[in-house]
Amino acid sequence: MIKKVLIANRGEIAVRIIRTCQDLNIKTVAIYSEADRDALHVQLSDEAYCLGPASSQESYLRQDVIVHLALQTNCDAIHPGYGFLSENDQFALICEQVGIKFIGPSSAAIRSMGVKDEAKQIMKNSNVPVVLGSDGLTTTLDEAIEIAEQIGYPLIIKATAGGGGKGIRLVYEKDQLVDQFKSAQNEASSVFANSGVYIEKYIEQFRHIEVQIAADQYGNTVHLGERDCTTQRRMQKLIEEAPSSVIDDQLRDELGKAAVRAAKAVHYVGVGTVEFIYDSIKKEFYFMEMNTRIQVEHTITEEVTGVDLVELQFRIANGEPLPFKQEEIQWTGWAIECRINAEDPLQNFMPNPGTISFAHLPAGPHVRVDSAIYTGYTIPPYYDSMIAKVIVRGSDRNDAIQKMRRALNEMKIEGIPTTKDFLQYALQFEEFQKGDFTSNLYSSMIEGFSDLK
Amino acid sequence: MIKKVLIANRGEIAVRIIRTCQDLNIKTVAIYSEADRDALHVQLSDEAYCLGPASSQESYLRQDVIVHLALQTNCDAIHPGYGFLSENDQFALICEQVGIKFIGPSSAAIRSMGVKDEAKQIMKNSNVPVVLGSDGLTTTLDEAIEIAEQIGYPLIIKATAGGGGKGIRLVYEKDQLVDQFKSAQNEASSVFANSGVYIEKYIEQFRHIEVQIAADQYGNTVHLGERDCTTQRRMQKLIEEAPSSVIDDQLRDELGKAAVRAAKAVHYVGVGTVEFIYDSIKKEFYFMEMNTRIQVEHTITEEVTGVDLVELQFRIANGEPLPFKQEEIQWTGWAIECRINAEDPLQNFMPNPGTISFAHLPAGPHVRVDSAIYTGYTIPPYYDSMIAKVIVRGSDRNDAIQKMRRALNEMKIEGIPTTKDFLQYALQFEEFQKGDFTSNLYSSMIEGFSDLK
Repeated sequence: MIKKVLIANRGEIAVRIIRTCQDLNIKTVAIYSEADRDALHVQLSDEAYCLGPASSQESYLRQDVIVHLALQTNCDAIHPGYGFLSENDQFALICEQVGIKFIGPSSAAIRSMGVKDEAKQIMKNSNVPVVLGSDGLTTTLDEAIEIAEQIGYPLIIKATAGGGGKGIRLVYEKDQLVDQFKSAQNEASSVFANSGVYIEKYIEQFRHIEVQIAADQYGNTVHLGERDCTTQRRMQKLIEEAPSSVIDDQLRDELGKAAVRAAKAVHYVGVGTVEFIYDSIKKEFYFMEMNTRIQVEHTITEEVTGVDLVELQFRIANGEPLPFKQEEIQWTGWAIECRINAEDPLQNFMPNPGTISFAHLPAGPHVRVDSAIYTGYTIPPYYDSMIAKVIVRGSDRNDAIQKMRRALNEMKIEGIPTTKDFLQYALQFEEFQKGDFTSNLYSSMIEGFSDLK
Repeated sequence: MIKKVLIANRGEIAVRIIRTCQDLNIKTVAIYSEADRDALHVQLSDEAYCLGPASSQESYLRQDVIVHLALQTNCDAIHPGYGFLSENDQFALICEQVGIKFIGPSSAAIRSMGVKDEAKQIMKNSNVPVVLGSDGLTTTLDEAIEIAEQIGYPLIIKATAGGGGKGIRLVYEKDQLVDQFKSAQNEASSVFANSGVYIEKYIEQFRHIEVQIAADQYGNTVHLGERDCTTQRRMQKLIEEAPSSVIDDQLRDELGKAAVRAAKAVHYVGVGTVEFIYDSIKKEFYFMEMNTRIQVEHTITEEVTGVDLVELQFRIANGEPLPFKQEEIQWTGWAIECRINAEDPLQNFMPNPGTISFAHLPAGPHVRVDSAIYTGYTIPPYYDSMIAKVIVRGSDRNDAIQKMRRALNEMKIEGIPTTKDFLQYALQFEEFQKGDFTSNLYSSMIEGFSDLK
């Protein structure tokens, strides 16, 4: 039984994890950088330790120091949240070696899914559809040109160690290939310390559909339905929904089964997300990647299933079997999450941290807010610009949209620009309201929004 | 179809109603007193009008002005919330006469239930158990003495026009009867402009169990289960729960059926609450009164049933049939509400209004807050001292208690004393945790709390 956990993260997800720990009577140890002394996760945890300067490299990413601290403070486990060390198989391995439970899958499962080109191969072998592209890494420009000839343009170059939209390049014609290939390799090398890239056919209009899965140590693996994260800006999710307006029961079943096969292929234990590209014209889906951690948008699955996914992570880590069978999982209503970022939509969404002079968050029936901000809080410029997640649940999609508009209308954040107004605009955008859109949605929306302002 | 509604209230319930109006695309007209210029309900409504000075008599209780304003602003309906004019049959009658929908039952139903001694008689006739006591009003001291001889001590004297714990006196022995009878009559006269009182046997140890009902215009009446409001301080509810730890399925069914009979007896249309005294020793329940309005603690029924009761009020007022049958209503988990008051528990819960220099309300999974406060808000001293309702839902009672402790732990209200610390103490009080307590709970709790401080 986990009695004390170190939370190797910050911001809203650290607060989210602390909340569930308090529900489960698990003591919490927070870590923070010098820039995060006043952070909410520091205030809410039972113990908190400063690990170093603001830079993530010198604080939240210090693997040895974190593991050492967990041992020193008698923690049984480390919860990595998302980002930072959450998908670092080396870190998971160190935890395994020193006997600290890493709240997530095995280091081997993380590694299998983290090396994107290998993951793709495993999926192929497990009968999970994948996008046409290179077999394994594309190391030389000549290879890249050859593959491009085979699969045709447009194509996408992806970092094998990638994530968060980094190390990705779109190539529409042969002339761009040389520059983009090198540029992708360089970015991959500097961001992930791994220059490996691979090439795929680029599906221009698609829906980003991901499936939440959960697996225990006893071979039970279930899916908890899909989330639709198509509403993105440059591969950054803006609005997420569960369920998706383009997925019917039969397709949900097929996607769910494919996601379960994907998880089983790497002997996955824990909660995780299998991301798919859904081609809504051909009505076909392809494996994109698996995120071997809790996801930002896990909240909407919680709202429609009634399952607390962070609690489930702890139960699985404790060696408990899944508390439900696939056929017992039910979906009720429609949930939407809006990510509120400290960015200025009128300045090309430039991150714009600063001091929140006044914060009033939405509340009341059907509304949930996961956040770490408060009146007087100064957002440090060193980390992700997301400052709050507003989540609503309605009886159906229209009801959920209406409730989200109400919730955002109530939200007041003063002192810094946020993406709230843009999200309000997006919620009323005709294509979005109809539910009939693809990955192009943002480009049509931003035009109208800029005109409006 | 109601398209625009005047909300004849203030505080959290006005905000609660505005939220649902926004969900349903109903325009809102707020009213406010001069003391409430900065109130949240004024800011969130579509239109807002100042009705006069701080005194309720000169603002929120000005029946004619309110109805006139509703007509002037083209409102189809008035929502009275709770308190103020919500159980004023005269006000409901005026609305009926001018063709404005009063969101509540008919003036006749309000009157039948408002005159407490008459209501008791109607219940008797409808086979709803009532407490032994006077038949109708007790007008003279001689009558009072005679009834006291018949039913024995202790007894309770109640104002027939009563509510909110006013005009009530407990009498433990004959010597006290003279003074208390007159005192009750005087208080009833000054608070309710009606000196009528009646006498009942006082059940010393009981659980306060109330049943939520809903009825449409077509004779369909259902109950939505019970709420346990036994944790009170001097007849003011502190903590409410749904379901109750002393009610099993069979008793829930019996209570529910009695509540439905009570509602049907007065041809009730709308949502309402039938309050019962439950004698947990004799395992018998007795009708206490019916509240012909939305109740403060309606939230916990919403959380366990998934039914939005304010939305239901509007649907019923629109002439829609109930969207569910009795057998379709299901209860999931356990919900608890804590009322946070601007009172000082260490000064005998003296109301202590003032400016909130900093407010940080709990949030995240399983937590709901209904409130009208914000950082910088000045609580006027003229109205009820309740400033927030914190609501949680857990899988069972222990889980809900744990989640409430987590939620209250997160709540920071600075600048004024609140009842938060007392509630935290109460949640950890052994008798409360066991669920094995009666109406005496507060007196044992407050002793320990005072010692602690």
